[in-house]
Amino acid sequence: MHRFKITELGENAFWLRGDEREHLVRVLRLVPGDDIVGFDNTGAEYYATILKIEDKSVTCRILETSHPEVEAKTKVYLVAGLSKGEKMEWVIQKGTELGMSGLVPLRVKRAVMRLEGNKAVDRVERWQKIASEAAKQSHRVQEPKIFAVADWVELQKVLPANTQWLIPYEEEKTERLFTVLNSLAPLLPIALIIGPEGGFEPSEVTWAQEHLGAKSVSLGPRILRAETAALAATAMVLAHYGDLG
Amino acid sequence: MHRFKITELGENAFWLRGDEREHLVRVLRLVPGDDIVGFDNTGAEYYATILKIEDKSVTCRILETSHPEVEAKTKVYLVAGLSKGEKMEWVIQKGTELGMSGLVPLRVKRAVMRLEGNKAVDRVERWQKIASEAAKQSHRVQEPKIFAVADWVELQKVLPANTQWLIPYEEEKTERLFTVLNSLAPLLPIALIIGPEGGFEPSEVTWAQEHLGAKSVSLGPRILRAETAALAATAMVLAHYGDLG
Repeated sequence: MHRFKITELGENAFWLRGDEREHLVRVLRLVPGDDIVGFDNTGAEYYATILKIEDKSVTCRILETSHPEVEAKTKVYLVAGLSKGEKMEWVIQKGTELGMSGLVPLRVKRAVMRLEGNKAVDRVERWQKIASEAAKQSHRVQEPKIFAVADWVELQKVLPANTQWLIPYEEEKTERLFTVLNSLAPLLPIALIIGPEGGFEPSEVTWAQEHLGAKSVSLGPRILRAETAALAATAMVLAHYGDLG
Repeated sequence: MHRFKITELGENAFWLRGDEREHLVRVLRLVPGDDIVGFDNTGAEYYATILKIEDKSVTCRILETSHPEVEAKTKVYLVAGLSKGEKMEWVIQKGTELGMSGLVPLRVKRAVMRLEGNKAVDRVERWQKIASEAAKQSHRVQEPKIFAVADWVELQKVLPANTQWLIPYEEEKTERLFTVLNSLAPLLPIALIIGPEGGFEPSEVTWAQEHLGAKSVSLGPRILRAETAALAATAMVLAHYGDLG
């Protein structure tokens, strides 16, 4: 059953416009009488049937509303040092499948790409589309938010005030992720700050520890690539809270 | 420090030949006096210095031998339904970084590619190289083994006799991975049977349950792509036993 993000929600119906309409009409070629599922990022899911297809919108009659328990209870945010394009997309896609709540692209010293101005805005828009598609494919009812590209000093303003910051760091030899997780407040948001391919400068880790209260953690004895670390850490944190596995 | 798989081990020295020699000489352009690390899949690691570069081999003098605790204690094997080439390679690479012990490529009904005869042998050889490279990059001392492409009926002969078989399956609604993990014998090998993009035929899951004693498990409420499921399951199982995170 195809899933769509609702443009406008009524009492017994909803409407799809813009890209969603185009996708339904031109790509999937659905017609009145076909059933679809709509969601609107509030946690609700609407099983519906297509009533009418017009020039700029599709009208769908809601048959049943539900609130599937598909979203993670613990909010896990990825803060990802800018990596080569394909890797960022991969992390966004799979982070969404796993259940992350959002991703902040972070400018770091060893980033291989610069992303500023309009180029940054466009890229974030594209990344949001990837997150939206992945959310649909994994049957989520809440798309993760891809935040604007940020610098270290902006991080605290971007994520919730009670966010608990963790920084998986290959130089961290003593504090293991699970030990630290056991010491965190349950149900408060958790941010995982992941380096780019080149890792972090030690000064960046120190800054995060001093200004964000970030705890550096080891993900185990083996060296992980940046994108593997991002996904493994996300999976392990969500699993720890019963939101995965 | 560059890492190499040892071709021949002596008491105070080792030799690199074939591809390892070529990589050292032609690609990395190392010279006598440079230090390297050698490993030989026995769990040992040899910190060495290059003594002599000859036409077909490189002689290295061992300075120090260690047995780093970098390998997972619990042996996790991935049994992967044949997926499109790039996805198999990602899973092999990242499964190796995470710490898997081996991977069996499995012929399944909904596989998008056929792999038989010489083509299968060549592909497995290439996949083994990917596993070797990933083992080096993650500082492992034991390369995971990529087994020959197998059919369902061959699986029991391929992996250890006391293997505990788990089959993450999107149709499984009740048994969660963690509940099942808690019921398994600790320290016995675990095999995770992952479907291809199209998933398993129900008859295949039934066969695995009846003939392998496989337990079907849910990885949580969200639908995961095949490669995401493979990596998430591997990470969660290894983390459960303290071998990751």
